[in-house]
Amino acid sequence: MPLLNFHVFEGRDGKALRTLLDAAHQAMVEAFDVPVSDRYQTVTQHRTEELILDDTGLGMTRTQNALLLAVVTRPRPQAQKVRFYELLSRYLHEQCGISPDDLVVSLVENADADWSFGRGRAQFLTGEL
Amino acid sequence: MPLLNFHVFEGRDGKALRTLLDAAHQAMVEAFDVPVSDRYQTVTQHRTEELILDDTGLGMTRTQNALLLAVVTRPRPQAQKVRFYELLSRYLHEQCGISPDDLVVSLVENADADWSFGRGRAQFLTGEL
Amino acid sequence: MPLLNFHVFEGRDGKALRTLLDAAHQAMVEAFDVPVSDRYQTVTQHRTEELILDDTGLGMTRTQNALLLAVVTRPRPQAQKVRFYELLSRYLHEQCGISPDDLVVSLVENADADWSFGRGRAQFLTGEL
Repeated sequence: MPLLNFHVFEGRDGKALRTLLDAAHQAMVEAFDVPVSDRYQTVTQHRTEELILDDTGLGMTRTQNALLLAVVTRPRPQAQKVRFYELLSRYLHEQCGISPDDLVVSLVENADADWSFGRGRAQFLTGEL
Repeated sequence: MPLLNFHVFEGRDGKALRTLLDAAHQAMVEAFDVPVSDRYQTVTQHRTEELILDDTGLGMTRTQNALLLAVVTRPRPQAQKVRFYELLSRYLHEQCGISPDDLVVSLVENADADWSFGRGRAQFLTGEL
Repeated sequence: MPLLNFHVFEGRDGKALRTLLDAAHQAMVEAFDVPVSDRYQTVTQHRTEELILDDTGLGMTRTQNALLLAVVTRPRPQAQKVRFYELLSRYLHEQCGISPDDLVVSLVENADADWSFGRGRAQFLTGEL
């Protein structure tokens, strides 16, 4: 159920993009312990002037690989979120060659009543999920 | 006041897009009981590889008509949200031919202080709204 | 740390866009009292039919300059938010010629555990920030 919204710079081809989405999905499934079919991802590709990711003085080296991942999820324990950042950073590095310095993540929480996955039903309320 | 962010696949013309936005707006106005002029909508059109909407094992049949609607709203009763999913699914089907299987919705709540509709004012705080 | 997502109409060149982002950043830094390097901004440019910003009957005159700013931030006092709307409206007018009638803002709050600025770490939890 988490919704993962990626903001990346233009320039990746379809295959590279898919590898990135797959790696992020793997990290999410492991950290949040959800089914593999719990996959909801959007990508917005930006020109250079449309995406600014500074570093709040942390000394990150950002490149054209830099990306922002904005997640919407039901409440998660802090340990799961920390684990997600770690796994995401690792898998994007291992599977896509993205530097850990190039990854910014922001989460927002919502609740059971805030999701419908089809057929106009709120599946967390109906008991279907 | 709800903000409706649509993520759709490329391919609809301007008229089809407008019909979609109108139908969703009608559902929102009825379910949330807000003025007709309470309309704030964005659309992001995605290439096939930029939007993945799986189904968490619910057995939905997703097509190129599939869309994600991400809503930001002040707190709403659960019954209003459920009603919104139902009406949205019905109107998109009736008015746009979109299958109920092709609709994913995610809501996030905020508060009165979190909105400004113009002139640098927070109209839910000033009493203007 | 606030994340600022801009939704604008197509038509601005790179320089005009940068001036807009700079002005909004200045307002955010002053109102929220954060470091200048606390800058995280995305821009999505929309065709006319992809962005609808009505006015809930408030009598705003929207033009092709109209924009929506969707912000994600850790909790902020109400006074900071009100100050942000005021400064944003003023600076966009002074520095970009954008009418105060053309500005819509929506905020969503999250928490310390909800941010990672790089290296797979949650810097508000580790004490780095």
